[in-house]
Amino acid sequence: MKITDNQEIINTCNGKLGESLYSILSNHGIDPGGFCGARGYCGKCKLLVIEGKDLLTEYTSTEKTHLTEEEISHNIRLACQARIKQEGELIIKILSEPWIKAIIYGIKPSVSFDPAIKMLEVTIPKPTITKYFTPSEVINTLLTEKFNCNNVYYSHYETLYKLTRILTNPRRSLCIIYKYHTATNVCEILDVDEQCKAIYGLAIDIGTTKVAYKIIDLLDGSTLYADYFENPQIVWGADIITRLSVAIEKGTHVLSSVLINKLNEILEKISKRIDNSKIYEIVVVGNSAMIYLFLGLDVKNLAIAPYEILWREPLYITAAEVGLKTNKGSSIFIPPLVGGFIGPDSLVGAYIAWLFESPNSQWLFIDIGTNTEIFLYKDKKILATSAAAGPAFEGMHISCGVRSMPGAIEKIKIDPETHKPIIKTVLNKPPVGITGTGIVDLVSELLKIGVLSKDGKILPTSRRVKHYGKERCFIIAYKEEFGNTNEIYFSQKDVREIQKAIGAIKTAIKILLKRAEIPFTDISTIYLAGSFGSTLDISSAKNIGLIPPLSDDRIKYLGNSALSGAELLLLNKDLRGEVEKFRGMISYLELSALPEFNKEFINNLNFTW
Amino acid sequence: MKITDNQEIINTCNGKLGESLYSILSNHGIDPGGFCGARGYCGKCKLLVIEGKDLLTEYTSTEKTHLTEEEISHNIRLACQARIKQEGELIIKILSEPWIKAIIYGIKPSVSFDPAIKMLEVTIPKPTITKYFTPSEVINTLLTEKFNCNNVYYSHYETLYKLTRILTNPRRSLCIIYKYHTATNVCEILDVDEQCKAIYGLAIDIGTTKVAYKIIDLLDGSTLYADYFENPQIVWGADIITRLSVAIEKGTHVLSSVLINKLNEILEKISKRIDNSKIYEIVVVGNSAMIYLFLGLDVKNLAIAPYEILWREPLYITAAEVGLKTNKGSSIFIPPLVGGFIGPDSLVGAYIAWLFESPNSQWLFIDIGTNTEIFLYKDKKILATSAAAGPAFEGMHISCGVRSMPGAIEKIKIDPETHKPIIKTVLNKPPVGITGTGIVDLVSELLKIGVLSKDGKILPTSRRVKHYGKERCFIIAYKEEFGNTNEIYFSQKDVREIQKAIGAIKTAIKILLKRAEIPFTDISTIYLAGSFGSTLDISSAKNIGLIPPLSDDRIKYLGNSALSGAELLLLNKDLRGEVEKFRGMISYLELSALPEFNKEFINNLNFTW
Repeated sequence: MKITDNQEIINTCNGKLGESLYSILSNHGIDPGGFCGARGYCGKCKLLVIEGKDLLTEYTSTEKTHLTEEEISHNIRLACQARIKQEGELIIKILSEPWIKAIIYGIKPSVSFDPAIKMLEVTIPKPTITKYFTPSEVINTLLTEKFNCNNVYYSHYETLYKLTRILTNPRRSLCIIYKYHTATNVCEILDVDEQCKAIYGLAIDIGTTKVAYKIIDLLDGSTLYADYFENPQIVWGADIITRLSVAIEKGTHVLSSVLINKLNEILEKISKRIDNSKIYEIVVVGNSAMIYLFLGLDVKNLAIAPYEILWREPLYITAAEVGLKTNKGSSIFIPPLVGGFIGPDSLVGAYIAWLFESPNSQWLFIDIGTNTEIFLYKDKKILATSAAAGPAFEGMHISCGVRSMPGAIEKIKIDPETHKPIIKTVLNKPPVGITGTGIVDLVSELLKIGVLSKDGKILPTSRRVKHYGKERCFIIAYKEEFGNTNEIYFSQKDVREIQKAIGAIKTAIKILLKRAEIPFTDISTIYLAGSFGSTLDISSAKNIGLIPPLSDDRIKYLGNSALSGAELLLLNKDLRGEVEKFRGMISYLELSALPEFNKEFINNLNFTW
Repeated sequence: MKITDNQEIINTCNGKLGESLYSILSNHGIDPGGFCGARGYCGKCKLLVIEGKDLLTEYTSTEKTHLTEEEISHNIRLACQARIKQEGELIIKILSEPWIKAIIYGIKPSVSFDPAIKMLEVTIPKPTITKYFTPSEVINTLLTEKFNCNNVYYSHYETLYKLTRILTNPRRSLCIIYKYHTATNVCEILDVDEQCKAIYGLAIDIGTTKVAYKIIDLLDGSTLYADYFENPQIVWGADIITRLSVAIEKGTHVLSSVLINKLNEILEKISKRIDNSKIYEIVVVGNSAMIYLFLGLDVKNLAIAPYEILWREPLYITAAEVGLKTNKGSSIFIPPLVGGFIGPDSLVGAYIAWLFESPNSQWLFIDIGTNTEIFLYKDKKILATSAAAGPAFEGMHISCGVRSMPGAIEKIKIDPETHKPIIKTVLNKPPVGITGTGIVDLVSELLKIGVLSKDGKILPTSRRVKHYGKERCFIIAYKEEFGNTNEIYFSQKDVREIQKAIGAIKTAIKILLKRAEIPFTDISTIYLAGSFGSTLDISSAKNIGLIPPLSDDRIKYLGNSALSGAELLLLNKDLRGEVEKFRGMISYLELSALPEFNKEFINNLNFTW
C-alpha cells in the first residue's frame, strides 16, 4: 500500500490493511488536519482521493454526517474514517489548510493535568432510624477528606432536588461533579447525576473578526472538537471603534446577544456528539472591548480616553446568567484584563511565552493585529503596550487587500529578472486580493528588486510599475494573469498605510526596549502570536524592519496563543492564580501619553529596523 | 380629651390635641395592635370609634389605602392615623386581637444590631490615561480595609453592567450593597445603585397551617411590616402526611409553586410602600417537611421511615432560583435542619431559650403542635425529640373542634354550682366551636367540677352530661344558648383524643428527663412556643398534666419563637454560626425506636403529671 500526498511537497508513505489513512499519514509525520484526535467528532481531516478510491473501505455513518453529498460524489473522505481494504497505490490530496489551523491552534508547553472540575462516584449508606449521616454530610466529608476543602457548597439548589430524587433509587450511588476553588480552598458542587459520564470544558477566544473555540475533555485533557466562526458582531462594524459606537447608540445587548446566540447555535449543532449539558466550565478570552461586548456591559467609559476598564481581577460569572446553554452549574472564567487595550487574550498568550522561558532571560511577545499588543519581559518585570497599527495587516485600507479567504494571496516571491510574481493563494484558487502576510512578502520583495526605496517610494524601475492617475502602482497580477478576473495592484498610498502600521509597531518595540534598557540583541526570543503573526514570513518581516533582525532560531511562532492560553487554564486549575501573579508583574505603558512618541514614530517609518 | 377603651378591662386615658390615638394609647400601656411601629405601613392598628368620631381628624390617604369602604362607613380608623382635633370624650374599641399577634410575635432577647447586609457610599476617582485603579479595585480596597474581607466578589454579573452604566455619570458616586460572610470572611457585592436608599430583610416562618412573616429595616433593625396568611398548600391537605403524599403523587413543585406565588403576590401588594427590590436577604424557617415543600424537593425519603433528611447544614440559596421576587442578588438562608421531625423553626426557637438562660441552668423548650418538638438542655448538651401529638390541639378529630377563627371558643370557665360555662370567643362572636386552648381549659374545668375522672371518663354528675348514642357528652353550649346556631359539645371520644395527645407529649418530656437524669423540679424554666403554646392557660395546662407542675414564674411564653428566631438571624450575622454550634449540642432521640416508649405512653394517659 503506497499513498502519495499530492501537496507541494510530495510525501509517500506505506500503510497496513485495515489501518486508517489518518494513522498512516500521522505515523509518517504528515498532518491530515482535524482537531479531535481522529475521534470522528470534528469532521476536519478531509482529503481528496485522486486515484485508488476502491482500495478504501465504504463511507462510514460519521463521514455521512460530516460530508455533503457533493463532497462524497467528488471522492472526499475523512482521513480518520477511511481505511485500507486492499493493497495498491493511492494518490490523495490533504484538503485541510494550514491557515485554518493558524486561527485555532497554538503552541503550548505541557502542563500537569489537574482541571478545576472533577467528578467522583459516591455511594450513600442507607439511613437507620436512630442515627445516620445525611447524604450531604457524607458528600462533604468525602470531599473534605479527599481534597482538603475548607467548605463545600452547592452552586444552585436544583442539585438538591436531583439529590433527593436520585436517592430514592435503592442503589443510592451517584456522581458528584464539583469544582475546586484554589484561591479559597472551597469545593463547589455543580451537579449530580446517577452515573459518572463526562465532563467537558470550553475555551473561547473572541477575536474582533473570528471567534475560535475548543471543547476539552476534562477527564483526560484531550481536544474533542475545535473550530472557528466569523464574529457575528461584524454586522455592527468590522473594527472595534465602530462596534463600540454602535453599542453606545443601540445598547450593548444588541451586540452581545448575536454572539451568545451564535455560540448557543453551535453548541446545539454539536450536541448530538458532545452533550452541551456536560460543559461545566468555560474560559473566555478576547481583547477588553470584546469582553465588554460579550458580557453586554456599558462601553461608554471604555470607548473614550482614558479608556477606563471596570475591573482587572480574574472574574467568574454564571454561564446561565450570560445566556450560554451549558450545564446550569457551569461558570465562565475570564482571566484578568490588563487595560483598555490589553485584554486577557494577549495576557494568557504572553503567559505561554513566560512558561517557555527561564526567569533570567529577556523576551518579547508580539500579537500583531489592528491593535498590536507587545510585552517585554526583563527581571521579573513586564512592560506592556498596545500599538495602534490599524487594519492594514487585515487587508483593510489597502487597494486590493483582502482577509484570509479562498483566493487570497498569502505568500509571494518576485522573480528578480522578469519581476513576475510567484504567488500562493488560499486553497490555490485564482487570486482575488492580497492578505497582510502577502503584503509583508510583497514589500520585502519590492525592496529586494529595487522597486521600493527604504523610505517607501515606488520607483519606476520595473515594467510592472504603472500610474493610476498621479499615483504609482506595482501590478501584482494583470487581469487574467493567474486566472484572476480583476487586476491586483499595490499603490503608493498602500505603501504609506503599511509604513504607518509598521512604524507604529516598531516605535512601540523600540520604546519598550529603551525603557527597559535592553539592546535588541539581548532578547532571547521573539514570540509571534495571532493568526497574522503565525503565518508571517520571518525573513520578509525582518527585511522590511517590522521586527528586530534576530536570527531565525530566536523567533518563534505561537499560533493562537490566546485560545491555547485559555485551554491551559482549563487543563490546570492552579495556573489561574499564576496568570494573576504574572499580570502583577506588568506595567502598562500608554504610548500616546509619552512625549517622545511622535518623534520616534516619524523616525521609524523607514523599511529598516 | 378622654378616651375609653371598651374592652373587657376598661382603660381610660387622656391625650393632647394633635396627638395620634396610637401615641395616646401606647403611652398609657394599651397596645393598639399593628406591627410597623405606627409608620402606617401595616394597617393593623384598627379601632372602632363608638362615640365622638367628630373629635378626630379626617381620614388620611393611608387609611383609605388600608380600610375598605365598609370599614370607613362603620367608623373604623387606624390608631396611628387618627389624631385629636377637638376636646371631648371618645369611646373606642381596639379591634386587633391578641391571637393574631400570637401568630406573628415572639419574645426575643436583645442582640447587638449587626446584619450581614450593609450598604456603603463610594466615590470613584476619575481615571487618568497613565495610571489608575479600576472602579472594582477601588471598591475592593475599601471593603477590604474597612471590613477585613479576604475576598470580594459579585453575586451576579448584572451588577457589573450597572456599575459601567452608573460610572458614565460625571458624579461617579454610587452605593454598594454587600453581604459579609462570616464563615469565609468574604464580601459579596449584591447590588449597586446611584444612591444609598434602603435595605430590607424578610423573615418567614412556614407553618403547616399559617405562614407568618416580617419585613425588617436592615438600617436600624425595626419591623416595617408583619402579617400572616393561611398556607395555600392547605388545599393539598391540612396535615403534613397528606401533603407529603400529594407531593409524591403530583410532584412537589405543585405545592411549592402555590406558596411561592402567594409570597410574590404579597410582596407585590406591599411594594408601593416597601420596595421588594430592596429585600436583600430572606431567612426561612419551618419544619423539615415545610422546608422541602417550599424548595420543591423530592419528599419520598423524608415521608417514609427512617425519614431521611438530605442535609443538616445551614443553607444559602439564590432567591431568584426559587422564584421569589426580591432583589436579584438576594439569597435565602435556611438555618440547620435537625432531623426529619425537627426543623429550623424549633431549632431557632430553642436557641432563643438558650440566649435567655445561663449555660449552667437546665431548661425545657416545648413547641406544642401536631408534632410537638421538645428540647431539654443540661450541661452543654441537648436532648431533642418530636412527639406525635396529633392534630387534636388544632381542633381536628374533636367533634366540635375548630381552629382559631372568629367565634372559636378560646377560653372557658365552668361555674362550679350551675355547671354553666363562661366562654370567651375570638372577636366575641357567637360560638362556632372550640379551639385547642379552649379544650385544655375545658378538660381542666371538668376535672375540677368532677364531671371528668383523672383516668378520662365523663361521669354522669352534671345536668349538662348527655348521651349521644352510647357515648357520654358534656354540652358546652346548648343550641342558641350563647347565640350559637348549633349545639357545641365535648364527647367521650374527644376525651380519648386529648388523652392521646397529652400522653404523647408527657411521655416525651418524661423520657427526656429520665435520660438526662433530671427531676422536673430541677428545671429552671419551661419555654412554651408556638401560637398554641402562647395562648395556653398555664394553670389549666398544669391541672390536666400537660406540663410539669412548676410554679408559674418558671413557665414562660415565647410566642412565635420560630419567626423571632429568624428575625434575630437577620439582625445579627454572627448568630448564624452560633445557631450552628447550638445545633452541634443536640442529640436527637427517636421515641418510636425506644423499647420503653409504649409502656410509658400507656402509663401517661391519665390527667395527672
